[in-house]
Amino acid sequence: TPVTEDFAEGYPSDEEWHGYINNNDRVLLKVIHYSSPTSAGAECIDPNCTWVEQWVHRAGPREKIYFKPEEVKAAIVTCGGLCPGLNDVIRQIVITLEIYGVKNIVGIPFGYRGFSDKGLAEMPLSRKVVQNIHLSGGSLLGVSRGGPSVSDIVSSMEERGINMLFVLGGNGTHAGANAIHDECHKRKLKVAVVGVPKTIDNDILLMDKTFGFDTAVEEAQRAINSAYIEAHSAYHGIGVVKLMGRSSGFIAMQSSLASGQVDICLIPEVPFNLHGPHGVLRHLKYLIETKGSAVVCVAEGAGQNLVEKTNATDASGNIVLGDIGVRIQQETKKYFKEIGIPADVKYIDPTYMIRACRANASDGILCTVLGQNAVHGAFAGYSDITVGICNTHYVYFPIPEVISHPREVDPNSRMWHRCLTSTGQPDFI
Amino acid sequence: TPVTEDFAEGYPSDEEWHGYINNNDRVLLKVIHYSSPTSAGAECIDPNCTWVEQWVHRAGPREKIYFKPEEVKAAIVTCGGLCPGLNDVIRQIVITLEIYGVKNIVGIPFGYRGFSDKGLAEMPLSRKVVQNIHLSGGSLLGVSRGGPSVSDIVSSMEERGINMLFVLGGNGTHAGANAIHDECHKRKLKVAVVGVPKTIDNDILLMDKTFGFDTAVEEAQRAINSAYIEAHSAYHGIGVVKLMGRSSGFIAMQSSLASGQVDICLIPEVPFNLHGPHGVLRHLKYLIETKGSAVVCVAEGAGQNLVEKTNATDASGNIVLGDIGVRIQQETKKYFKEIGIPADVKYIDPTYMIRACRANASDGILCTVLGQNAVHGAFAGYSDITVGICNTHYVYFPIPEVISHPREVDPNSRMWHRCLTSTGQPDFI
Amino acid sequence: TPVTEDFAEGYPSDEEWHGYINNNDRVLLKVIHYSSPTSAGAECIDPNCTWVEQWVHRAGPREKIYFKPEEVKAAIVTCGGLCPGLNDVIRQIVITLEIYGVKNIVGIPFGYRGFSDKGLAEMPLSRKVVQNIHLSGGSLLGVSRGGPSVSDIVSSMEERGINMLFVLGGNGTHAGANAIHDECHKRKLKVAVVGVPKTIDNDILLMDKTFGFDTAVEEAQRAINSAYIEAHSAYHGIGVVKLMGRSSGFIAMQSSLASGQVDICLIPEVPFNLHGPHGVLRHLKYLIETKGSAVVCVAEGAGQNLVEKTNATDASGNIVLGDIGVRIQQETKKYFKEIGIPADVKYIDPTYMIRACRANASDGILCTVLGQNAVHGAFAGYSDITVGICNTHYVYFPIPEVISHPREVDPNSRMWHRCLTSTGQPDFI
Amino acid sequence: TPVTEDFAEGYPSDEEWHGYINNNDRVLLKVIHYSSPTSAGAECIDPNCTWVEQWVHRAGPREKIYFKPEEVKAAIVTCGGLCPGLNDVIRQIVITLEIYGVKNIVGIPFGYRGFSDKGLAEMPLSRKVVQNIHLSGGSLLGVSRGGPSVSDIVSSMEERGINMLFVLGGNGTHAGANAIHDECHKRKLKVAVVGVPKTIDNDILLMDKTFGFDTAVEEAQRAINSAYIEAHSAYHGIGVVKLMGRSSGFIAMQSSLASGQVDICLIPEVPFNLHGPHGVLRHLKYLIETKGSAVVCVAEGAGQNLVEKTNATDASGNIVLGDIGVRIQQETKKYFKEIGIPADVKYIDPTYMIRACRANASDGILCTVLGQNAVHGAFAGYSDITVGICNTHYVYFPIPEVISHPREVDPNSRMWHRCLTSTGQPDFI
Repeated sequence: TPVTEDFAEGYPSDEEWHGYINNNDRVLLKVIHYSSPTSAGAECIDPNCTWVEQWVHRAGPREKIYFKPEEVKAAIVTCGGLCPGLNDVIRQIVITLEIYGVKNIVGIPFGYRGFSDKGLAEMPLSRKVVQNIHLSGGSLLGVSRGGPSVSDIVSSMEERGINMLFVLGGNGTHAGANAIHDECHKRKLKVAVVGVPKTIDNDILLMDKTFGFDTAVEEAQRAINSAYIEAHSAYHGIGVVKLMGRSSGFIAMQSSLASGQVDICLIPEVPFNLHGPHGVLRHLKYLIETKGSAVVCVAEGAGQNLVEKTNATDASGNIVLGDIGVRIQQETKKYFKEIGIPADVKYIDPTYMIRACRANASDGILCTVLGQNAVHGAFAGYSDITVGICNTHYVYFPIPEVISHPREVDPNSRMWHRCLTSTGQPDFI
Repeated sequence: TPVTEDFAEGYPSDEEWHGYINNNDRVLLKVIHYSSPTSAGAECIDPNCTWVEQWVHRAGPREKIYFKPEEVKAAIVTCGGLCPGLNDVIRQIVITLEIYGVKNIVGIPFGYRGFSDKGLAEMPLSRKVVQNIHLSGGSLLGVSRGGPSVSDIVSSMEERGINMLFVLGGNGTHAGANAIHDECHKRKLKVAVVGVPKTIDNDILLMDKTFGFDTAVEEAQRAINSAYIEAHSAYHGIGVVKLMGRSSGFIAMQSSLASGQVDICLIPEVPFNLHGPHGVLRHLKYLIETKGSAVVCVAEGAGQNLVEKTNATDASGNIVLGDIGVRIQQETKKYFKEIGIPADVKYIDPTYMIRACRANASDGILCTVLGQNAVHGAFAGYSDITVGICNTHYVYFPIPEVISHPREVDPNSRMWHRCLTSTGQPDFI
Repeated sequence: TPVTEDFAEGYPSDEEWHGYINNNDRVLLKVIHYSSPTSAGAECIDPNCTWVEQWVHRAGPREKIYFKPEEVKAAIVTCGGLCPGLNDVIRQIVITLEIYGVKNIVGIPFGYRGFSDKGLAEMPLSRKVVQNIHLSGGSLLGVSRGGPSVSDIVSSMEERGINMLFVLGGNGTHAGANAIHDECHKRKLKVAVVGVPKTIDNDILLMDKTFGFDTAVEEAQRAINSAYIEAHSAYHGIGVVKLMGRSSGFIAMQSSLASGQVDICLIPEVPFNLHGPHGVLRHLKYLIETKGSAVVCVAEGAGQNLVEKTNATDASGNIVLGDIGVRIQQETKKYFKEIGIPADVKYIDPTYMIRACRANASDGILCTVLGQNAVHGAFAGYSDITVGICNTHYVYFPIPEVISHPREVDPNSRMWHRCLTSTGQPDFI
Repeated sequence: TPVTEDFAEGYPSDEEWHGYINNNDRVLLKVIHYSSPTSAGAECIDPNCTWVEQWVHRAGPREKIYFKPEEVKAAIVTCGGLCPGLNDVIRQIVITLEIYGVKNIVGIPFGYRGFSDKGLAEMPLSRKVVQNIHLSGGSLLGVSRGGPSVSDIVSSMEERGINMLFVLGGNGTHAGANAIHDECHKRKLKVAVVGVPKTIDNDILLMDKTFGFDTAVEEAQRAINSAYIEAHSAYHGIGVVKLMGRSSGFIAMQSSLASGQVDICLIPEVPFNLHGPHGVLRHLKYLIETKGSAVVCVAEGAGQNLVEKTNATDASGNIVLGDIGVRIQQETKKYFKEIGIPADVKYIDPTYMIRACRANASDGILCTVLGQNAVHGAFAGYSDITVGICNTHYVYFPIPEVISHPREVDPNSRMWHRCLTSTGQPDFI
């Protein structure tokens, strides 16, 4: 049976409403996952791995719409850090809302903060305003972390008369959206809360990929190629590139695979030692002695046992990570000094230059379809859902289903093994 | 039951051979298509559309290898026109062959022609030679159309002692590979013939996408954006961009969707009139009067009923298409002159600038995995197969299964409807 | 003595005026040209070539300003075809006018046409409007060729109360600006008419370079490299690239030099034969036989004796050129067919994709300084001037001094000889 | 009188030599500088500034050549850090040497170190080897800092039979080349030592610009635009970009001008305070309060009085600079925390990603001509010279004339004032 049959069950199906959801409106889709719970969509090499057949709600327009367009006030809010494609999604939501006939569309500035900060005015949105915003990176609306309480947000929405809320953000932001939906439900407000997963790390469960990820892997090539050229042009050159990936190494893994120039790829899901006979440093020595240069690509969340713990958290509640990139750079310099072999270590952190890019064409398409589907979902009367792509099909997920934990690289997956084949690296334990 | 169970049944399973295929070696994969036969992988909006469950052979290394690496002489040949990623695939085949221990690897220059032309020497290949070739476009080995007879090719292979042949090319080239396999089988030669589908048009049946397509859509953005800027900056400006797509409009459709700047998208699968009350020209008049400018994106194979038929064919046997791009440019100029409205029509054909690009990161990964899998397949003793990605999984297909006809855009698919939503264009019939 | 001492002599120096120009305000600059009249700025290899010392007016702010900012209504108009950097210049003129305190700034839409077409409204301009326009190509104001009579333009300016006119365009547009200035002078209107030379061909006398040229040479690299890769990857491949350059071959020459991949560079200033023992085709045969491939870069105005004359002119009065690129492609195919050698000829015309680019950093700086200086010049009370860079210094030129004829490549210049050294081509006569 | 008349006077003019320099061979060029000694080529706004007429040696082929090509063994060495265009210069030197008929051309690996390190073999160079190296960044030969003593270098050259040495490097490397020339002279070796100034900072006296600089300014736009987008999309966002420029702020100044998005530009030549009523931080507060965001562009050598002194030096003898970028980031965070205004500070250091780029077209041309001229100079028998571009002309300079100290931005120059106009920043003292 469809696992998501009842995902909007909490939604008020009041007879007075303009429309309602029923099963006939639901276009179900059967998809197959070969996966452990942690690596949706990945291909596992474990011979015992079996598949799961799952029914999901296909995204798209529905025959009946729940809201009268002329009564809709739609709001868009972008939370967290930057990610390529935010403007594409904003643009497409606005354009699709206008196609439905909605006239009252606003942007909430600077994330959830915009609901409470009196100094920040709503930004009226229309096709004219958004026409070319996808040609630049960033977010037209501004982003920020943290913000007021859920109760304050919903009160603000009531005051403003918002009955459709589109929330672009990561796991934390979706948890917020979920809580906003619950609070609306409690207050019996007829509000559709629809998420669009925004995580450059590609770490959302059940989804083939999230927008911005493809662009990030593309842009990371510049940094990796620079590291390769610096390493290759130097005497005993070692280039170290730190890429995004707090708890998931997808960007580092895919970027290494794409470049074909990385010798060592380190991700959060796979533990490693720096020192010792099987450590990264010993392998670097081997590479310098045999190839004369080496390139290391490390995800920001890798090897957190090797850096000093901070207990600090950012406004989103994320733990501030220790800087593994700088750590590797320093330990490498120290190690080669100790063993008396010259080494020229260069460290590159392209994070902000990647995040601020505009979406590439592939992400542009993804964002366009996600934006269209977010509006279709809201108009169909779905709430507490988020949009995504799953086994090449666009679908709706109930928010709670995707935010339990971040998706991770499965160390037994074929993709990780392809990466290991490409880098030629051994186990570092 | 698996539809592809017996795809290598013609293969000699002589006991003397180093290895052989049996069912235990086959890792099967269950995938689901929502599709009519013409639009594999597409999402259909037809409510009566049902899905098909299909078993395919998962690509990847097998436990037993059929060839002794020291006895292998592998050859790579690239046929047809250029496509981003050719060098990535060549590179990865060479690297993976070396990992298996193969020392004798050669490139056949300039397509099948290289088998017969005495003036063209085999190019010895090794990791050193291919290390950085993926950083430029084109093909290290050279491409060409046509070539000697199948019999001559196989005789040449016998003389050279080639027992693994990797063929990169489109439908025609795969038909050739199929015939080469059959001829080898007839002559009882133990040769593995493995294809890698190379078609920038993305028109191979059953595959999510083929390499080079993503790069093509990315690079097409430059042309479309130039057309948009020329059109937008001119008084009554109309920009016309012709993109690749002989019988399939995937590049035009996806590029239009990605850009968000196209007003009219024309593809081979959807007929249209230029003239008449519902014709393209009347809509252009409407766009000029309301928006002041317009952008048209047309696939090279679109509207072939509107251009003069040529009976010429190229060396690959493809019919030389009439130039629909130039035709639209001319008819548009004529039309606006006739109706007495000034119009400034600019025509852009970026074909060669797109084909000659190096692969982007996304295609880089695709090529890497396809190249690895081509070698895994050959070593497993498969022949007459081609590699691909199907519902996000990498698989082997029997060549005959994918070359019956080109994959096409389904005019009832959701993706085409998303494109129509994005352009806002009506039916042109 | 300074040759330009009196260039603004026709300007009314009425005592009632807010300010006036006198010699003390003029900051003169001594520059040295090694040049024949046709090749300003070029370095001549003729041993008899001598230099000319010339005094020019240095561009920049003056101590006294002629106009009261609160009385200024400034207009900007962009004429002719697109050129990278138009938006940069518009932006900087607006920003600098605001720094002077001007509040009334408008854009005239679509070139001189905007003065007469009742349907086209003035576009109010301010820093807010222009803040990020330099990030896209094209012209915010739109361009067009032709337009109303000088008398009608000046009448329109009177009606609108425009007393500063900034004209961005080529030789023809500057001739128009010159005539507008004369007409204003005749009508005793206190109007400053200031030009900014816009010609992607870099064909303005006395100037080191014009804006957009550097970007054009940069972008042309894509086309040349594509032609190189297509030629190199094909069996007997020949790539032909047509670049801009109606009467001057600067883009073709510099692009060939920069790429290092061009075998034959053809420009309007150097005659050539296609056929015959010294013709281009014979040399192509030699290249195919020795190197296996060849790349030709041809300026659009080259070899006009070899194409059919058209007597047509465009709205700017320019003769419509015959298409030398297509001609070379056709003759090459025919020639190789006749001599029985296979050849694979690919033709690329990247013109619109180059023109529509945004300015690169180098042009961005040039545009910024030209825009600032245009405003400084107008405020100083200069009229009938244009801004430029001359021997690395920014200067004002009297318009008549620079528009007598287009600047051309001197076939005796060192730069052309460097190009010949790079291509290795012989004389084709 | 020509200031450089005697720059090669130390050169042995032995009658046995194949050729020699005399005044008739010298093509002199008269150039004019408006400059203080520290800012060659800059345009000064000081009304008392006068010009200097100077005679320099024009670069190019000479009628008589000093070396018999068949007796030449030419070596190329690249020293210091990476700079876009190194491969272009290497390539053109090799190609031009081959045109002269030289067959014996080698690359010395990894800078001067390659002369002494027995493990590093000379790299034979030819047109075939260098054909496409300009398409990637870095240095084919490898770079390094430091190396053996001058005496050991010259002894190694004697052993190897090198009689033409092309040295690509900065001030320190040129000082080395100067010493090598002197030592050769002392030992009566007939060796031509020719430099090509390689400094991405553009800090060589008397030259309009050095290769790589233009590319650096171009690539810096990515970083600045990223900082702008991060700042603009954040609530109270501040983006800080650190660019190259140890003692000269040319890259920071030109990059700021080109981008039009920088609010504060800080360079080594202009002192500033962070704290206090006129400090940078107070201005940042003003920007945040009025604009909501700010972008700072700082040269690495700026504000060295504000960071802790290190006495460390690198292998080139350069003092290791304190990190002003990190310092500004930290102080900004601290300041806004203290004054109780939220601020989101992002720091970008794109240095290695800029250095490792391939040359853009403009630098490609510069490198081509410099490479050609280096060979022309060596063949003419000049030694202890370096090549450059001066007032748009290509010239030879005696090495001692250009290495006395680095060229700097003149705080009174028009270019710096244009930058100030563009940023709108006050004095920070």
